[in-house]
Amino acid sequence: MPIAQINIIEGRSDEQKERLIAEMTDAIVRALDAPRESVRVLINEMPKQHFGIAGQSAKKLGR
Amino acid sequence: MPIAQINIIEGRSDEQKERLIAEMTDAIVRALDAPRESVRVLINEMPKQHFGIAGQSAKKLGR
Amino acid sequence: MPIAQINIIEGRSDEQKERLIAEMTDAIVRALDAPRESVRVLINEMPKQHFGIAGQSAKKLGR
Amino acid sequence: MPIAQINIIEGRSDEQKERLIAEMTDAIVRALDAPRESVRVLINEMPKQHFGIAGQSAKKLGR
Amino acid sequence: MPIAQINIIEGRSDEQKERLIAEMTDAIVRALDAPRESVRVLINEMPKQHFGIAGQSAKKLGR
Amino acid sequence: MPIAQINIIEGRSDEQKERLIAEMTDAIVRALDAPRESVRVLINEMPKQHFGIAGQSAKKLGR
Repeated sequence: MPIAQINIIEGRSDEQKERLIAEMTDAIVRALDAPRESVRVLINEMPKQHFGIAGQSAKKLGR
Repeated sequence: MPIAQINIIEGRSDEQKERLIAEMTDAIVRALDAPRESVRVLINEMPKQHFGIAGQSAKKLGR
Repeated sequence: MPIAQINIIEGRSDEQKERLIAEMTDAIVRALDAPRESVRVLINEMPKQHFGIAGQSAKKLGR
Repeated sequence: MPIAQINIIEGRSDEQKERLIAEMTDAIVRALDAPRESVRVLINEMPKQHFGIAGQSAKKLGR
Repeated sequence: MPIAQINIIEGRSDEQKERLIAEMTDAIVRALDAPRESVRVLINEMPKQHFGIAGQSAKKLGR
Repeated sequence: MPIAQINIIEGRSDEQKERLIAEMTDAIVRALDAPRESVRVLINEMPKQHFGIAGQSAKKLGR
């Protein structure tokens, strides 16, 4: 029953998120030999000003 | 000081969320014999395209 | 597909944890009208020195 | 590589959040003697009705 | 700067965990076109009695 | 009611963890003007083989 969460900065399309879910699930199934139907992947999308890298937000860093 | 987080898919009313907080808090108090005032329950509401089940988003699965 | 995590301080018996899972699951099913088999509850047990309350660990506070 | 997440209730300005990232990063660098560039701070901002305190949401409690 | 966490039940070897990190990182790089060096994957390993499925722990369910 | 969690790699002393809790709490109080008694800081300590950086565990990377 692997449950993954991934934090990403806003700006990805729904297609990219759908692909992220599919690719991460495949990766977990392969690495752990887990049943595909037991895998959960939760995406947490964050505004740039909420993601701090080395003391500054991604927004301030211009990323 | 139990601190719970719960991930749910969008689409619940404020009344349901309020009930969820109350019910989860009661459950924690009962099971752990913890003081009610020490319990925290955080709801994380996610869009359907962010919640992956068995390799596909809840949106794609039509849930 | 509600997925809950709960952080508790070490020192509970396996019976209390089993009861915590059962009670939290019941609470979620009742409040959200969610199918019981879709609910996940993850317990994260922490040492007293890892749980900070108002600037001091639970260990230092003697809890 | 310390990675911190902080849950706060909505209503802070971007300046406060930027300061929160800077102050938390400084604190982590000081306490752990960690390289500044390795620190990540993720802010999770929550609506008042999603934050439960002692069985009621912050919204219901009027906070 | 994608940061992923994955919750798994205890019982995997270090080789499987190393593979899990590698496979999940590859998946994230491919799906998001993110720089490999920016990806973090955190594994949270849980005892069977801490992982609740449909109201019972994985231990009680005999998994 | 700010609630922070921080993931660190194993190997810090109890004194460093106590200092981490104190420093992070101070930082949060200063940045948000939050009441000190409302702040929670949870430390999640991870084995080196559970912390993946750029596709390899900290253990494999020799950190």
